[in-house]
Amino acid sequence: MIIAVDAMGGDNAPLEIVKGCIKSLDQMKANIVFVGKEDAINEVLATCGEYDKDRISIVHTDVVIENEDSPVKAVRSKKDSSLVMAIDMVKNGQADAALSAGNTGALMTAALLHLGRIKGIDRPAIVSPYPLLGKAGKFSLLVDAGANAECKAENLLGFAYMGSIYMHNAFNIESPKVGLVNIGAEETKGTTMLKETHKLLKESTLNFIGNVEGRDIPRTDADVLVCDGFTGNIVLKLTEGVAWSALKTVKAKITEDITSKLGTLLIKGKLKEIVKMFDYSSYGGAPILGVKGLVFKVHGSSSDIAVCNALVKAAEVCERDVVAEIEAAMVKYSESGAENGAEQA
Amino acid sequence: MIIAVDAMGGDNAPLEIVKGCIKSLDQMKANIVFVGKEDAINEVLATCGEYDKDRISIVHTDVVIENEDSPVKAVRSKKDSSLVMAIDMVKNGQADAALSAGNTGALMTAALLHLGRIKGIDRPAIVSPYPLLGKAGKFSLLVDAGANAECKAENLLGFAYMGSIYMHNAFNIESPKVGLVNIGAEETKGTTMLKETHKLLKESTLNFIGNVEGRDIPRTDADVLVCDGFTGNIVLKLTEGVAWSALKTVKAKITEDITSKLGTLLIKGKLKEIVKMFDYSSYGGAPILGVKGLVFKVHGSSSDIAVCNALVKAAEVCERDVVAEIEAAMVKYSESGAENGAEQA
Repeated sequence: MIIAVDAMGGDNAPLEIVKGCIKSLDQMKANIVFVGKEDAINEVLATCGEYDKDRISIVHTDVVIENEDSPVKAVRSKKDSSLVMAIDMVKNGQADAALSAGNTGALMTAALLHLGRIKGIDRPAIVSPYPLLGKAGKFSLLVDAGANAECKAENLLGFAYMGSIYMHNAFNIESPKVGLVNIGAEETKGTTMLKETHKLLKESTLNFIGNVEGRDIPRTDADVLVCDGFTGNIVLKLTEGVAWSALKTVKAKITEDITSKLGTLLIKGKLKEIVKMFDYSSYGGAPILGVKGLVFKVHGSSSDIAVCNALVKAAEVCERDVVAEIEAAMVKYSESGAENGAEQA
Repeated sequence: MIIAVDAMGGDNAPLEIVKGCIKSLDQMKANIVFVGKEDAINEVLATCGEYDKDRISIVHTDVVIENEDSPVKAVRSKKDSSLVMAIDMVKNGQADAALSAGNTGALMTAALLHLGRIKGIDRPAIVSPYPLLGKAGKFSLLVDAGANAECKAENLLGFAYMGSIYMHNAFNIESPKVGLVNIGAEETKGTTMLKETHKLLKESTLNFIGNVEGRDIPRTDADVLVCDGFTGNIVLKLTEGVAWSALKTVKAKITEDITSKLGTLLIKGKLKEIVKMFDYSSYGGAPILGVKGLVFKVHGSSSDIAVCNALVKAAEVCERDVVAEIEAAMVKYSESGAENGAEQA
């Protein structure tokens, strides 16, 4: 098994990317192909101590897609960039998955244009683990986490199928519970699109548990949280902002009184543990689902540990054929749709 | 000045409502008319100690709109309910404002049907103070907080005008900063509707400071946060859920180690202070803006203190003619729109 890694994408590339990859070697079986500037990669490798050199190779390119680059333009004009080349290795069967901490829009665009959509999926999605603050150590899978700001009900149904299949394959959950992010528990709540989605989900073969309100998101029982990309982005980033602000306030409030160094240190340690609990990078990277190949996005500011976690998860997912499973589910769904259509006609 | 209070609306009615009203008498000049069951109101009044009886009166009715009632149906069939009668007092000039902790949908419906829309406002909105966790003690005004799940760009422009006028009148902010809740800082971000809204806000006479991302909401500089009611509901409730979960986690983590009673007590006190910091009821009630009259909603589970705060703020707003100011702003806007149209023609 081979994972192609864009060594140049991300704020701390190639340093944290390369270090994270080497760290992962002991925890998974896949070999790694770095795509990027050979000299820069070798420089980091030289600092990594002992590792199995047979499992590492480098494909050299000088071209890099920057964070500021316009996604579509960059993917079209920088065909020999580390990001696009890593994806092309998946396309050409030279790698089983690609991983990048680079420009998210460009990664999505390259995946879409170079790998193509799975039949039945109009809109591929970026999914993200959403750490459940109210259930320490657990998470739900948020689909779509930001790729598609405007969606139709059918798109959300596709997200639900893809999310369920991913949670089953990557996290061994037998029949993942699917929740719909909405503004009330009743099926009559929300926008027209969400009412339609509710109906589609209820009629589907998925394990749909109903609407999930904002207040209940951090403690939801749902394994998969379905929403449009606008809502997903707001949910992910607002959670980060509120949790950060709440902890900052707690720290300031508590340490204003406890003057002993020991007390302050104790609490700081505890707060660090809590911050770690809702660090979604510890749950692995975020796959792009709905394209014909496995592509993983890791956060631009990822540390070596976050990169390592993402690779371990990616290798695990590679062993099960998530893409084929999504394809099969979509075929099955479109056939059942055709049957329903025939019945109605 | 007279405020009509629905004494029967809310989880703790009439107890907390009546107690809160009596508490407010020392802090504001308005007189209060309770609408509801006379005996039940008098029973609470008898426990309230000394107060100026000349400033209190009761309009009796036995009919109450329940939280489970369907809003439109309830407003139509229960015309002599405490909620509808309080609003009718505003309509008939018998009161300067109405206040209720009852069924939000029914309050919105009664305000809309019995008071009517301000010209130029297609969609009245419920606004809510949004406590900024990242800026202790400060808040931003969220418009719409949940009344209109689906909106057009023009609706959001109306929300921005109404929110600005309210912040100016109720909180003495000279030129309120308006932010648009969105998924990126650039004006090209978000849905088609939000891109249009961005353009309208930029061209308006409002003090528009641009898009506000989820991550930055808890520490935004915006005095008014504009969004559709779906997003507003998610933002308000998710913030509550995340903050609650974060504090619960902190409490559990910290008290698992500090065994001395004193330490635990100290931290519990601090956490209570923090919970209070993001209790939006301390910022007064949430007005329904865009209708021809002042109507305030307080949270269904409000304590006497929350009711008291809401009344004090309501009395302050009554002294300035917010409704007339919104009407004037809308006339001015529609005239400038007509001019622009003429120029383009």
